[in-house]
Amino acid sequence: MIDIHIMQRLALLAKQNGPLCVGLDTDPSYLPPAVIEAAGSREAAVLAYNKEIISLIAADKSACCCKVQIAYYEALGIQGLKAYAETLRAIKAAGLIAISDIKRGDIANTAAAYARAHFSGDFETDIITVNPYMGFDTLRPFTDYCTPSGGRKGMFVLLRTSNPGAADIQQQELKNGGIVLERVIDELNRQAAHFRSLYGKDCCSPVGAVVGCTQQDDATYLRERCPDVFFLIPGYGAQGGDAAIAAALLKKAGGTVNSSRAVLCAWQKDAALAAKRESGALRLNAIAASAAQAAIQMKNELVQAAAY
Amino acid sequence: MIDIHIMQRLALLAKQNGPLCVGLDTDPSYLPPAVIEAAGSREAAVLAYNKEIISLIAADKSACCCKVQIAYYEALGIQGLKAYAETLRAIKAAGLIAISDIKRGDIANTAAAYARAHFSGDFETDIITVNPYMGFDTLRPFTDYCTPSGGRKGMFVLLRTSNPGAADIQQQELKNGGIVLERVIDELNRQAAHFRSLYGKDCCSPVGAVVGCTQQDDATYLRERCPDVFFLIPGYGAQGGDAAIAAALLKKAGGTVNSSRAVLCAWQKDAALAAKRESGALRLNAIAASAAQAAIQMKNELVQAAAY
Repeated sequence: MIDIHIMQRLALLAKQNGPLCVGLDTDPSYLPPAVIEAAGSREAAVLAYNKEIISLIAADKSACCCKVQIAYYEALGIQGLKAYAETLRAIKAAGLIAISDIKRGDIANTAAAYARAHFSGDFETDIITVNPYMGFDTLRPFTDYCTPSGGRKGMFVLLRTSNPGAADIQQQELKNGGIVLERVIDELNRQAAHFRSLYGKDCCSPVGAVVGCTQQDDATYLRERCPDVFFLIPGYGAQGGDAAIAAALLKKAGGTVNSSRAVLCAWQKDAALAAKRESGALRLNAIAASAAQAAIQMKNELVQAAAY
Repeated sequence: MIDIHIMQRLALLAKQNGPLCVGLDTDPSYLPPAVIEAAGSREAAVLAYNKEIISLIAADKSACCCKVQIAYYEALGIQGLKAYAETLRAIKAAGLIAISDIKRGDIANTAAAYARAHFSGDFETDIITVNPYMGFDTLRPFTDYCTPSGGRKGMFVLLRTSNPGAADIQQQELKNGGIVLERVIDELNRQAAHFRSLYGKDCCSPVGAVVGCTQQDDATYLRERCPDVFFLIPGYGAQGGDAAIAAALLKKAGGTVNSSRAVLCAWQKDAALAAKRESGALRLNAIAASAAQAAIQMKNELVQAAAY
């Protein structure tokens, strides 16, 4: 048990708590003005809301991890990044796994600097997302942190995103057969074989993949092609993904299904809050309770669909 | 004159000062321990060194811009990002153009958050680098800032990187002819046509491209294929690029040639500093003078090679 990496710990926690990943893409515009005013600043309100949600979902065991999208915090400048760092600490302190959605990717020394930035120091996280476009040599500084001696960290490589533009590069047909993202699949399987030699065959690979929750046939195909690769599955809830597709992606090595806005903005549609919403009297604990309730509902939907 | 965008201002400044871009990828390990000790912290030393170099190259008119690689500052945490923000301010205050090498890329709302993060607020810069892998719809929130009403900012899209892994995705052959990066060329040319309608035919496109400085035939081909696209050309100096290749890339719309380590670490090979280097008595102004001297030498090499 002490010998596993963080991705395998996530896979085990997903079995216990269900596969939901709560996305803390907490844009201040998702919060009622009264909550921001009470907190004193946008970044203080974001952090307070994040902490409240983390505490509730950890108590409810409705999620296995939180994904924090760094873009929303960068957009708030230095103070926003302090809130980002504190959010990561709160996730880990609550016993959940922290995924930093940073999608970094760069060459050699620069990739090594990004790896240091997000696997140690102020912004230390459990698992990051990475962009493989510049080539598989650019993954090396990150995979070095996934080894038993390197810190047993994890990473999700972008494999199939759920936006229309996925067709522009990822899905271009190659001269020698298949589409561009098949090259990424080959690399993921090479990494899986390598890490099997380090952690044994009962562990999933610490190098997972981001696979959007949008098309049934893609989902089935990708799941078959990467049996040992744990998936991070965005696009559920607000982005229109479907529980049946998520269920297909959750087979084999499994995965975690992210929902951000449908949780963070649940208060906007919560019938029980209608009167307070209209009078502008909403407080932090009320909107966080709506978020936690939405998380429980999504967990139940996913568990049922996946017969998890 | 008042109507142009920042990329065109960079193109004009490159004509005046020469095409050198000084890369402030200032890893603390590039500095003598005595300089870090005197500054009180790694991030203070990095910032002091950056400011000294910026001030010298602006006075010497040896460069048109500075490229700041954010990874090295993220690796120093919150304090590092404060030094990053101050470095950007110092570049602009010295009358040079600031390029933020951030290589971000993400969908819809997230890309919009990154655009806000780097085109406004604490981290506001002139020009950013972006990764197009997730699709061309992901560029839109950034190009919105390049319009006359959006702020006249600029961006460089990753086109051809100079690492061996460029073969893994960028150079894969497509079923319908050409290689993957030709799809990026098509998009760059669409953007150039669009912005020509906004800024007129005498401006280059505000959407430039990153083209590594490694192979002569690639260089000639890419320059021909994107005549209106200004290039950011890394890989010169420490990465082994060649002035003749840079010269090929500098034709047509032109470009700026980045050198980072060969400038930042010039003090390590400076014969005039040999005695002080051995006794550990190096001070900030001495190592910055070496850096500025290296920049002048590189500018001259480039200007000569390009008959600029």
